[in-house]
Amino acid sequence: MAIKFADRMDNLKASEIRELLKFAADPSIISFGGGMPAPELFPVEEMKKVAVAVLEESGQSALQYATTEGNVKLREQIADRMNRKYQSKVALDDVLITSGSQQGLDFAGKIFINEGDVVLCESPSYLGAINAFKAYGPKFIEVPTDDHGMVIEELEKILDSTENVKMVYVIPDFQNPSGKTWTMERRERFMEVINKHEIPVIEDNPYGELRFEGEILPSLKSMDTKDLVVFLGTYSKIFAPGLRIGWVCAAPEILQKFNFVKQSADLQSSTISQMEAAKFGEMYDLDAHVEKIKAVYKVRRDLMMKIMKEEFPEGVKWTYPEGGLFTWVVLPEHINARDLLKKCLEEKVAFVPGGAFFPNGGNENTFRLNYSNAPEEKLEEGMKRLAKAIKSMM
Amino acid sequence: MAIKFADRMDNLKASEIRELLKFAADPSIISFGGGMPAPELFPVEEMKKVAVAVLEESGQSALQYATTEGNVKLREQIADRMNRKYQSKVALDDVLITSGSQQGLDFAGKIFINEGDVVLCESPSYLGAINAFKAYGPKFIEVPTDDHGMVIEELEKILDSTENVKMVYVIPDFQNPSGKTWTMERRERFMEVINKHEIPVIEDNPYGELRFEGEILPSLKSMDTKDLVVFLGTYSKIFAPGLRIGWVCAAPEILQKFNFVKQSADLQSSTISQMEAAKFGEMYDLDAHVEKIKAVYKVRRDLMMKIMKEEFPEGVKWTYPEGGLFTWVVLPEHINARDLLKKCLEEKVAFVPGGAFFPNGGNENTFRLNYSNAPEEKLEEGMKRLAKAIKSMM
Repeated sequence: MAIKFADRMDNLKASEIRELLKFAADPSIISFGGGMPAPELFPVEEMKKVAVAVLEESGQSALQYATTEGNVKLREQIADRMNRKYQSKVALDDVLITSGSQQGLDFAGKIFINEGDVVLCESPSYLGAINAFKAYGPKFIEVPTDDHGMVIEELEKILDSTENVKMVYVIPDFQNPSGKTWTMERRERFMEVINKHEIPVIEDNPYGELRFEGEILPSLKSMDTKDLVVFLGTYSKIFAPGLRIGWVCAAPEILQKFNFVKQSADLQSSTISQMEAAKFGEMYDLDAHVEKIKAVYKVRRDLMMKIMKEEFPEGVKWTYPEGGLFTWVVLPEHINARDLLKKCLEEKVAFVPGGAFFPNGGNENTFRLNYSNAPEEKLEEGMKRLAKAIKSMM
Repeated sequence: MAIKFADRMDNLKASEIRELLKFAADPSIISFGGGMPAPELFPVEEMKKVAVAVLEESGQSALQYATTEGNVKLREQIADRMNRKYQSKVALDDVLITSGSQQGLDFAGKIFINEGDVVLCESPSYLGAINAFKAYGPKFIEVPTDDHGMVIEELEKILDSTENVKMVYVIPDFQNPSGKTWTMERRERFMEVINKHEIPVIEDNPYGELRFEGEILPSLKSMDTKDLVVFLGTYSKIFAPGLRIGWVCAAPEILQKFNFVKQSADLQSSTISQMEAAKFGEMYDLDAHVEKIKAVYKVRRDLMMKIMKEEFPEGVKWTYPEGGLFTWVVLPEHINARDLLKKCLEEKVAFVPGGAFFPNGGNENTFRLNYSNAPEEKLEEGMKRLAKAIKSMM
């Protein structure tokens, strides 16, 4: 075939996480791979009542086209949520609904990145964001992180010595993939540096509410005095990913660009999904639902940590996440996590090798584990198989 | 603010159609502007049963992440539909679900267009497609059309004399905005030329099933022997746009690119919306539903045609659509449709000025009328107001 694709298509390939979802469909495999919520916690019975209520009260509007920015009630609830949970001071007009926060990532790339521009991100960073940005042809510079978050001295060095830095992408709360959370002090210093350099920040926060211990820290957005921070949120982890409801919260000049881009990308997100999410917020207590999720995930995190401590051989390190969905494992340098995965798939257990989370490659001795999706018994069995496979490669 | 947006943002502005949706929200305005289906025909009662059935039978899966390519049952129904309606021979693996066909348009731009590449389209063409493609920086060449479709001699001349033509975008059935349909002979000659030049074709077909008279003609996709045609379909006009269900049907090499792009753009379309659309197809008769829609729209088309004939002054011309949602009006050259719109908004009636449908500008004496969204009484009143406004400008 003589068809010529655009050059950008050379940068895109199938996501390993999505490919892994195919394994996960095999019920005999215990998967720590995806970032899937526990389906047994979805409010299925409540959603039946919600769906009927939406169609009874406003069936015709629910099935019709609606505005690009999204459902007013839902945006109101989201603004309120951000103010209550993350100390923001935003209103519904600061919020635009997206189809999951993944769409917010794609749009951020489209809005900010010219080919060859520099994007800064944590090292490692979220694979899905890296792939979304790659379509727009940036160079990535990975900023080193430690247990307290991004290393600000390194960020400053890079900003002082680099042209064309167009945006900084960060996940300060229970980072994907590392599970780490930035301290308050790190957030403050980060915003000082950002304000000095006036670089847009994409603050991706899918997991912030899922904190098992301690207090939720203020979002970068709440500390933003120069309209530089674009906050991406989602209902996927606190409610249900199948509805594809996420949001962008940004200053008017930036949010208008998101609106234009969304118009040409898909006009609007599902009217009925938005109305259902808003109606759930009216009829039920989403905060109480999040508490239920946290209680279950905390038990799974604790169990995963316990088994790692008991079963993983010396020389293997991992992070202790105070919330969210993931922990991050660093193997001795001579072990390649892709080889480990091959062995593990034979043993019917899966995870995501860490190399893909580094946009500039390397770090093949790392991998990400998800603990939200497997019930305790399965989690225990899967972790034992994984430990055995690691031991066999030491 | 010092923030620098990507260069492509200079090409994007708010769609006039979307801005008009804001007028349409004012209930005192009779709008022929949008492309909205008649909401009174939405199967609201059926959807209540469908929603409950989906949540009862597979509530956890309906609220969970799912695969990028989309729900298997829905893709099966769509492939079957394409084969029955448009003489295609496709299977579920040839179909990928998108969030409306607008998303298919954006993805087509992303997949095929490098900055400066040439995109051919009918003159006029769909505003939303033009805007979606513009984000990727192409040059547009408009191919002249007559009452039988694209003028093939002109297409050949352009292809013979132009470098870097990366795709041809067409709407052969009840075109948006013109309401015109390509004849069989024109389809055959088009495919001959395309096969010779081996250029990808984006065949956008949102309205094809809404034919009020005569037989549905074969899709270009069904006549495609070289895997060059990408077919975009949607449930928005035959079912409900609020679910945001569209699809792409293409050869494996091309469809795989759509899959990669969708992964990074939004992972997948709404799981629950897809399951509901598929369940509706199982529980009810979508073909029968389409017949109901056609019967209502035919009456409205007839009424609009009748009033135009009776009330529009000499020197105004319009198309006779055999189906779909739109007719296209050409005013005498000295009348600017944007000025007419201003006058009409004072009289509480709205439409979309035609200039925006020509990517290279001009043709300001044209506009598009939609007849699907207004009940007869309103349609009659609105058309009379419109006729009066036109007369006052002659």
